[in-house]
This record gives sequence, structure tokens and C-alpha cells, in this order.
Amino acid sequence: MLNFDFYNPTQIVFGKDRIADLSKLVPTDAKVLILVGGASAEKTGTLAEVRQALGARPHSTFSGIEPNPSFETAMQAVQQVRADGFDFLLAVGGGSVIDCAKFIAAAVLFEGDAWDILLKGGRNIKKALPFGTVLTLPATGSEMNNGSVITRRDIGAKLPFRSPHLFPKFSVLDPTKTYTLPPQQLANGVVDAFVHTVEQYLTYPVNSPVQDRFAEGLLQTLIEIGPRLLTDTEADIEPNYDDRANLMWTATLALNGLIGAGVPQDWATHMIGHELTALHNIDHARTLAIVLPAMLHERRVQKQGKLLQYGERVWGIRSGSEDERITAAIEKTRDFFERMGIATRLGAYGLGQEAIDVVVRQLEAHGMTRLSEHGDVTPQVSRRVLEAAL
Amino acid sequence: MLNFDFYNPTQIVFGKDRIADLSKLVPTDAKVLILVGGASAEKTGTLAEVRQALGARPHSTFSGIEPNPSFETAMQAVQQVRADGFDFLLAVGGGSVIDCAKFIAAAVLFEGDAWDILLKGGRNIKKALPFGTVLTLPATGSEMNNGSVITRRDIGAKLPFRSPHLFPKFSVLDPTKTYTLPPQQLANGVVDAFVHTVEQYLTYPVNSPVQDRFAEGLLQTLIEIGPRLLTDTEADIEPNYDDRANLMWTATLALNGLIGAGVPQDWATHMIGHELTALHNIDHARTLAIVLPAMLHERRVQKQGKLLQYGERVWGIRSGSEDERITAAIEKTRDFFERMGIATRLGAYGLGQEAIDVVVRQLEAHGMTRLSEHGDVTPQVSRRVLEAAL
Repeated sequence: MLNFDFYNPTQIVFGKDRIADLSKLVPTDAKVLILVGGASAEKTGTLAEVRQALGARPHSTFSGIEPNPSFETAMQAVQQVRADGFDFLLAVGGGSVIDCAKFIAAAVLFEGDAWDILLKGGRNIKKALPFGTVLTLPATGSEMNNGSVITRRDIGAKLPFRSPHLFPKFSVLDPTKTYTLPPQQLANGVVDAFVHTVEQYLTYPVNSPVQDRFAEGLLQTLIEIGPRLLTDTEADIEPNYDDRANLMWTATLALNGLIGAGVPQDWATHMIGHELTALHNIDHARTLAIVLPAMLHERRVQKQGKLLQYGERVWGIRSGSEDERITAAIEKTRDFFERMGIATRLGAYGLGQEAIDVVVRQLEAHGMTRLSEHGDVTPQVSRRVLEAAL
Repeated sequence: MLNFDFYNPTQIVFGKDRIADLSKLVPTDAKVLILVGGASAEKTGTLAEVRQALGARPHSTFSGIEPNPSFETAMQAVQQVRADGFDFLLAVGGGSVIDCAKFIAAAVLFEGDAWDILLKGGRNIKKALPFGTVLTLPATGSEMNNGSVITRRDIGAKLPFRSPHLFPKFSVLDPTKTYTLPPQQLANGVVDAFVHTVEQYLTYPVNSPVQDRFAEGLLQTLIEIGPRLLTDTEADIEPNYDDRANLMWTATLALNGLIGAGVPQDWATHMIGHELTALHNIDHARTLAIVLPAMLHERRVQKQGKLLQYGERVWGIRSGSEDERITAAIEKTRDFFERMGIATRLGAYGLGQEAIDVVVRQLEAHGMTRLSEHGDVTPQVSRRVLEAAL
């Protein structure tokens, strides 16, 4: 096992009817800016619940945070916070709204050009406004970590940052809030959590049986509940609470630092995926589904030991040569994404060979030239991966 | 899944040569009272490392905290803290020293008779001194939770308490610090972590696949590394670092709130075990090894679903009637404890039928009359369990 630090002070408030707990969770003297995406938080009644729980605390709502939240939108919110003196942020939504809240929380108190936060990956953040979250879309894990990704549309850049100052004070996870999600967003959530887990698990062995088994447990759970979540939304019945609860908790645990503590991490698939989203506005989870199978094929030698373990423990693959078992494990992964209704080829998104040069150039421009757990995914390797994903 | 709250702000600093990090972890203006058990922390050089890392910070050492730490000893330390104005505690040792530190931290700032803390289970704690830990004996998980157990020898009582104010600020987990432990203490650690996990896992199903798989992952890991840890200490070679690291991290995760979030919990075995320790000074882990197999046999109907799952997933038991598989799973558990050198019968500790009445009377005296996940382990059931453990 590798040396590690683990620190995660976010309070999780999980279950049915927990939004009312905001009355205790938010400081009584707070002046709260509620952050939301589109109109759904208002339409579903979630915002009304939130406002009721806030009681007499002064609050206002900033809406319009887009999927893959933009620097430009975040800076509008920063201006409003400064102008009106809000001292607590409450993100109500999914990973995009929460990621945006993190940037706003840091930018409001940042001295200098806030774009520098992204150029330095957050290492220059010295303080941040306190914030909490009400999660409505399980996927990114942002509700229980200190990382975020912000997009600048004018230059087609999607850049990650993190800081120990950016853990949510609390996150309310009410699985019933997912009942109104369309199947496509549930599928995105399943695939996003799946690939988060894989990025921390499918590297090389360092004798970390607990981290391995925790990761495998998350993957097995997603494989079990994923297809049920799709049929669930088709039927004219109350969604299955436990499946929603298990998706929500799984997605949170997939990226709260736990399964990545003491093990190597990859993240090459994510970095390439971010460029695809920035350039072509493809859903984050879908970019991961495109890149991951091709990446695993490309790096089957470096990842051999873990790929065999993954095939056996997660997919029950026990027969065939090592090479055959690895191929089977990767293709099972691809099939799972496809069964979730998520295409795994660039062509399915209307992209061909001509798109690849631009992605590779952007990776170079953003310094993403030595990716993966070994630092051996160069732009040339990324190009081969994208070509294999055509 | 059940509703739950999860909050655990303890910073884990894990790995080789991490004690030096105390120089950054302990506030620079702290006046530190170091708490230790016997002479081993001094003999092994750990205390010298700790003192070096503390640098110019004023500090002193309080030693003599016994296994199953006593109220009486803790109150001596409380007096010293108050008299000399220490404002930070640093526990260097295993669960006993850390548990004692928690009591001292609370008692120093408690108004009224500190014994009340135990009578109220800690619900009356309003504040506590900050404290950190350097773990040298993996077993109890006290290094990453807010619970503790204190013994009052004059009345033969061993009572638990907890408080949100009692999370360690940090815990340094250096696996090499376990190299000097005798095999008996390593075996205790394995069994303690095993039973902590079982108390949160072997209850009744609530559709919590992630919690189940995490618990199973901890149990499988303990079964793998446990026997190796025993032979390891016999050989005249450097102990296996990874086995020690995996034991340490497993024991921490077995009782940091994670696997118990959203699921029913039992703890009947622990409560009966505490009485055996208080009355007969049997090591905590050994009392658990005595009680657990008998408890599982007694409650095989209430625990049927989970016992079958445990048998299959942890021990690979797939053939036989349901009743046979449950019996096999329980006996595999007993065999594992015995292979770890830990006897699972009262007789092996010199106790017979005559000891049982007293234990049952103490359970009644301490209000332990409706134990288990169903509240159906009455004193009469506890008596049957103890008789089955003869």
C-alpha cells in the first residue's frame, strides 16, 4: 500500500425527508445564496422545501448554472455574492451546480484574477465561503469531495481544480429527489460513478486488498442496479427507493477519496473526456464511455494484473487465456455502457477522424501530456486511444 | 437502506515515517500532554520520534494508562491537565490509550462529576480538549471514531460513551510501529476488527449492497492476512509491511462509521463481552471470540438471511441445507478465531457455570436488557448464549 492522507469532513445527511434538516445545518445567522441549474428544482418542489427549511434566514436564488458550468456564469454569481453580501452558498442540484458553487466560494474571496484558480488547479486558494449542498442528481461525487471542473467556453477549455477549503460543510442526499430524473441522466450517473471507480482501481497492484474490494463492491452494485434504473423510469409506478438510494450512496463513495487512498490513480480517460466535452458538448459520462474501453485495450499490458482481477471478481470471467480474459473484461464493460443506453464510439456522436487532431492539440495546450498512473499516456497514446474509439 | 448521518472529520496520516508530520499537525502554540500506556512506546523509540516532531512545543508525558483504561487513572490525568494547563492531548498507543484520551479530553472541560459522562453515555458532553493520536496497535478503530469505553474497577463496570466532540483531530497510522507487537496482540487486533465488522453486518437485510460488500471485503481481508501475521512474528525476518498496513487500515475502517451507515447494528456480543472483561480481566477481543459464535447460533433464525450471505460470500459455503450452511458459517468463524490462537470457550479462561449468574446480573445493572438489532436479547437470552459458550 502507498502512503496516503485521508481527510473528509463533509457531513452526509442521507435519506427520505432530510431537506427539513437544513433548518439545523445552515448557520442561523447566514445570508444564503441558493444556486440552481434550470427550472427543475423549482418545478419539482425541491426549492420550496429548501426555502421553507431556511425559515427566517435571508436568502435569494441564482439560477441558470449550465451542465459543465462555465467560468462566465460562475463570475456572474460571484458578482451577486459580493454586491449583496451573501455569506453562505447552498447548491441545489447535481455535480454541475455543486462544482460551480465550489468555484464561486473560492472566487468570492480570491485576490486577483479568478481565472488563475483554474490555471493553478486551485493550489492558490487560501480561503472560501462556506457552502452546503442538496443533491438531486447522483453521479459526480462532488457532494463529498473538494474537487471541481469549470469550463471556459470562449477558449474551449474544461479545467479541474481542488482545495482543502472546498469540502461542502454538509450534503443532503434524499434519494426520492431522483424520482423525476429522465433515464438518460440516471444512466449518465451510473456510468460516471463506474468510471470514477475504475480510474482508481484499474491501475497496477500495490497489495491493497481493502481498496480493491471496496472498488469492486461499488462496480458490482452499479452493474446490478443500473439496468433496473432504466426500466424503473419506464414503468408507471413509484420508482424503487432502494435502487435510487444505492445509486446515490455508491456515486458518492466512488469519488470521496476513500477508494483512492493508498493506491495509484489513473484519470487519463477523464482528461481526454474533458476535452471532448469542451469541444463538442458531449455529456461528461458519455465521453468517459467513449474513451474508457479504448484506453483499457491500449493499456492492457500495463494494467494486466488488475484487468485480470477485474474480469474475475466483477464479471466472473475465469476461462480463456489471459489475453482473452482481458479482452472479455473490456468488452463486458463496453456492453454494460451500451446496455445503459450510452454509446461507446465517437461515430455515434457524429465525430470522425477529423475530430482527433483538435482533441490532441487541446490536451497539449492544457499540459495533459503525461497522463495515467505511469505518466506514459502521451499525446501520441491519446491519439491511438481516440482512433480506437472511432 | 435506512436513513443515516455520516460525519467523520478525523485526518488520517498513513504510512511509513509519518510521525514526523506531527510537526505540522499539532498546533504550533499547543502545550501538549502525551498519553501512553506502559513502557513500550519509550523502549521502541516511538516516543523519542514524537518528542522530536513536537520540537519547541512545551510537552510532558503521562504514562500508566492500562488496558481497559480505568476511570481512576483517567482522573489522575485530568488533574494533571488542569494543574499544568495543557491544551492539547496526544495519545500514543492503542485503543486503550486513545479511549482514555477521549475521556480525559471531555472530563477536563466537564462541569460536575465526570462519572456522569459514563452514566449518560456522553450525551452530556458539550465540549472537549482537542487531541490527536499516534496508533501503535491496530484493533479498536478508536483512532477514527468518537466513541470510547472506560472501566471503573471498584464496581466492576465497563461503560461506553460517545460524542461528536470526541473525534481525534488527526491520527498517524504508521504500520511499522506494529513490528514490535507480540503475536497475541496482533491476533487480538484481527479478531477485534472482525467482530466490529460482524456487529454491523450480520443483522437483517435492508437492501444495502455497498455496505454489505464493504463489510465482506474487510472480513475477507482479515481472514487472508490474519494467519500470516502470526507466522510473520515467529520468523527471524523483517515483518511484511503490507500485511501490517492492511491490518491497520482494515481495523480503522471496521469502526469509523462507514460500514454501519444506513444499516441496522447489533452490538449485543460487545455488551456481554464488556462485562466479562470488567469482571475477569479477559482481553476485549477474547471476550468477543467467546460470545460471538454462541450468539450467532442462538440468533440463527433472526439473522438467517445475512448468515447465509456471509457463509457464501466470505467463506464460500454453497452446499447443504440452509441450516447446515449457517452452522458451517458459524463454525468457520470459530475455527478462524481458534487458528488465531484465541480460545472461544469460557472454560479455556477458567470460567464455568458459576460465572454466568454474575455476568447476567451486571448486564441488568447496566441496563443491557434489550440488546441486538431487534432489542430481543434479554438477560435470559444472554444467559443462554453464555451457557452455549461454556
